[in-house]
Amino acid sequence: MIGVFRLGHRLPRDERITTHVALTARALGASYMAYSGTHDPGMEESVQKVVERWGGDFKVFYVPRPMKYLKELTVPIVHLTMYGAPFQEKMEEIKGFKDMVVVVGGEKVPGEVYQISHNISIGNQPHSEVAALAIFLYELTGGKYLYAKRPGAKIEVIPSENKKLIKIDGEE
Amino acid sequence: MIGVFRLGHRLPRDERITTHVALTARALGASYMAYSGTHDPGMEESVQKVVERWGGDFKVFYVPRPMKYLKELTVPIVHLTMYGAPFQEKMEEIKGFKDMVVVVGGEKVPGEVYQISHNISIGNQPHSEVAALAIFLYELTGGKYLYAKRPGAKIEVIPSENKKLIKIDGEE
Repeated sequence: MIGVFRLGHRLPRDERITTHVALTARALGASYMAYSGTHDPGMEESVQKVVERWGGDFKVFYVPRPMKYLKELTVPIVHLTMYGAPFQEKMEEIKGFKDMVVVVGGEKVPGEVYQISHNISIGNQPHSEVAALAIFLYELTGGKYLYAKRPGAKIEVIPSENKKLIKIDGEE
Repeated sequence: MIGVFRLGHRLPRDERITTHVALTARALGASYMAYSGTHDPGMEESVQKVVERWGGDFKVFYVPRPMKYLKELTVPIVHLTMYGAPFQEKMEEIKGFKDMVVVVGGEKVPGEVYQISHNISIGNQPHSEVAALAIFLYELTGGKYLYAKRPGAKIEVIPSENKKLIKIDGEE
């Protein structure tokens, strides 16, 4: 099981970025996104609405004490940071983890996170936690969840080269 | 040359998402990000600050009439949309394009964009234009720009498994 932990969510600044982190985690096969920082029921609800319509059982939950939570984990922590080791050097080891929590940061990641994590970079240029998470999960899973059917989906896309087509409750 | 076109930038809603689109485009080897919607000098400046510090010559510019601009392009347009054909089926053809513009949308993409583009999906679940762009450019380029040196960089990361290390103007 892959979980994602989004550190230091701030409002209003991170509202959409954290939503994108959650939806990216879901689309690429993670089971949940935990987050710390500011409790944000609105963001949680917008992700849950996607889950209700598009299926599966992805969860979002708030963690008030992130360092306590991370230190008590019994699964490996993979921290995506532009300061970390190049991911290509570490993916073989990481693919051997049965379960893991993938941490993506906000602006200031506590030094302790570096001490308890496998710190890997998806490039060492500043870009985006959404992009880093996407590339990491894509490499980790081979992209196999991108087109997977989700149980309970009320809405589904019919891939098309030139228009928008969807099925709602099984009808085109 | 790879360009990125971000359609329909809205303020304040998209301020950070569009910045992440630009930085992701830059980190993965695109040469510029054009954008339409609301003109946003603040977003342009925040991207230019990254370019000044981290090197290279990535550009951001505003396009007031996006459909006119796109229709006058003489290079292929690749539109990333959850409604498109699965990207794995199209990457071989797309890798043959010498130059291209990669379009990522906001909420409402005009139907005309579908008619003039190669419409491909990075998964058919709702997630993030940042994630879609990241995975697309990563596949297209094999990730070769993620650790490339940028000419004129004032600041550089020294990859490390357990701490933050940077060089500023060549000094650690």
